[in-house]
Amino acid sequence: MAKIAWIQGKSQGSIAENIEYYKDKIACLKSSAEADNLELVILPELFLTDYFAIEEKVDNFDLAFSKSSKETMVFCELAREHNLAIVFPFFERVSSALYFNSLYVIDSQGEINCHYRKMHIPDDPGFYEKYYFRPGDLGFKVAELGESLKLGTLICWDQWFPEAARITALKGANLLIYPTAIGWDAGEPEDIYQDQLEAWLSVMRSHAIANNVYVVAVNRVGKEGHLHFWGNSFCIDPYGKILHRDSTDEAISFIDLDFDRIEEARRVWPYFRDRRVDVYGDLQNLWMD
Amino acid sequence: MAKIAWIQGKSQGSIAENIEYYKDKIACLKSSAEADNLELVILPELFLTDYFAIEEKVDNFDLAFSKSSKETMVFCELAREHNLAIVFPFFERVSSALYFNSLYVIDSQGEINCHYRKMHIPDDPGFYEKYYFRPGDLGFKVAELGESLKLGTLICWDQWFPEAARITALKGANLLIYPTAIGWDAGEPEDIYQDQLEAWLSVMRSHAIANNVYVVAVNRVGKEGHLHFWGNSFCIDPYGKILHRDSTDEAISFIDLDFDRIEEARRVWPYFRDRRVDVYGDLQNLWMD
Repeated sequence: MAKIAWIQGKSQGSIAENIEYYKDKIACLKSSAEADNLELVILPELFLTDYFAIEEKVDNFDLAFSKSSKETMVFCELAREHNLAIVFPFFERVSSALYFNSLYVIDSQGEINCHYRKMHIPDDPGFYEKYYFRPGDLGFKVAELGESLKLGTLICWDQWFPEAARITALKGANLLIYPTAIGWDAGEPEDIYQDQLEAWLSVMRSHAIANNVYVVAVNRVGKEGHLHFWGNSFCIDPYGKILHRDSTDEAISFIDLDFDRIEEARRVWPYFRDRRVDVYGDLQNLWMD
Repeated sequence: MAKIAWIQGKSQGSIAENIEYYKDKIACLKSSAEADNLELVILPELFLTDYFAIEEKVDNFDLAFSKSSKETMVFCELAREHNLAIVFPFFERVSSALYFNSLYVIDSQGEINCHYRKMHIPDDPGFYEKYYFRPGDLGFKVAELGESLKLGTLICWDQWFPEAARITALKGANLLIYPTAIGWDAGEPEDIYQDQLEAWLSVMRSHAIANNVYVVAVNRVGKEGHLHFWGNSFCIDPYGKILHRDSTDEAISFIDLDFDRIEEARRVWPYFRDRRVDVYGDLQNLWMD
C-alpha cells in the first residue's frame, strides 16, 4: 500500500510565481485530512514555467537550470520540511547547447533519489521540443521509495510508446508516472477534441493493462496562447480501470495504491510468462517493410 | 481504400456442421447489397470447432488437420468461387506432438498467400492452449492483398502484447486483424464482466493509436460449457476510434477502410520518427528488476 497525491496546476507565469504557487499547494495538500501516510506528490511537466516550447525562442534557454540550482534546493527543502517525496520535473541545462526535459525524484529526506531525462521528444506545431531538448541519455528509470513504491518515471510524449512503459515495468515499477503538458490546439477543429482526449486515456489504460501496473498522469491546466491544457490527470489501476480523473480545473488529488492488486492481476493475466523475447529483437528496427 | 467483412459466428458443434454454417454465411454476405468491391472476409479463431481448449482431452488432437486437408480445400474453393480473400484460422497438425493455432490468408484466386502461427499462447483455467499448441515459429506476418491491403495477421492472445502489434506494423501492415475466441467465465464474478470487455477494447484501441493502423477483432458468440463468448467484434480506426462494434449475437459486418487516414494520422502523431530503437534491446529481457 502507498498513498500518493498530485497537483494539477496552472502556470502563474514566472518561475518565482510558480515556486510560490506550488509551495502553497504542497502546504495545503499536506495539511489536508487526506494526507495521513502520504508518501509522494507528483508535479506536472515543466511546472515552473509557462509551456515555453509553444515557440522557438532563443531567450527561453534562460529558463533552464542545473542540478545545484536554487530552484532544486527549494524543493529538496520542501520535501524535507513536509517529510514527503516529490516528483520534480524541470528544464535541465547541462552545458550550452545541451539541455534535457528532466525530472528528479526527491525523497522525503530531501535527497535526489532518481534522475530521469525524457527519452521520447515530440515536435509538432506548438510543441517545438526538439529545438530545446536532446532526447534522454540515461535510459528508463525506477525509483524505490518508502516500503513498497517502485516508481517508473516517464514524461509526457513517452506515453505514446508502449516500449517505454514495458521496459520500465520490466525494471520492476509498480507505478508508472507521466508528468505531462498536453492540451488542445485552437488551430485544430473542436470536433476532434474529445477523440484526442479519449485516445490519450486509451493508450494510458493499455500501459496499465499490458503491464498490470498503476499508471498516473499529471497534467497542467489553463490556456497559454493557442494551447488549452486539458487537465484530466488520472490514476488507472492494474486492470486498466480509471480510479480517479480530474476535471479541466486546478486540482489536488489523493489516491491509495494497493500493490497486492498487481500480483492478483498478473495471476489472472500472466503476460510476462508468454512474451516472445526470442523475436522481439525486431523492435530495434525503425521500419521493416 | 478497401472494403472488408467479417463473420461473428457461433459454433454448430462438428467440423462438418461448421463448414456448412460458414459456407452459408459467406454466400449470404456475398449476395448482400453491401458486398460491392468486397475484398476480404475474416473468420473467428478456430471457427471449425467448439473451443476445445476449454479442457485438456487427448482425443481433441483428432480435430487438427494439415495444409493439404479437404477442409482447407473447401475454403480455397469458396474463395475462388466468390472471388474473395478469406482469413481461415485452423488447428494445424504438423506431426504427432507438434500442433499450432494457425491461420491461412487465402487470396481471391484460392491460393494460400500467408501462413501465420499464433506467437503468444495463453493458458489459464478454461483456456488450456499450451496443452495443444506450440508457440508459433514463423514470426509476425503481413499479407499483401489486392491494391492496397497489407494485412497483419495476429490471433487472440497476441492482442495483449504491444510488441506483436508493433512488429507487425513495422513490417508495413495497414490493418491488424485478430481472429479471437474470448469470453466470460461463469466461474468469475459478473461484476467484473464489463471491466474485462473494456480492458480488451482499450488495449486494442491502443494498438491502433500507437501504430496508427486499423485494427479488427473477430470473435465468436454463444455459450460453450462454462464459457460465454462475448462477441463484440469491432473495427477501430488509426486514431483509436471504434468505427463499428457488434453485439453479443451472431453478425455479418462490413467496413470500408480508407488508408489515407493512416498517412494523415502519422503526420499528426509521428511516433515512428521518435522511437528509441537504441535502447529497445531491453525488450528482449524477461525481467530486469
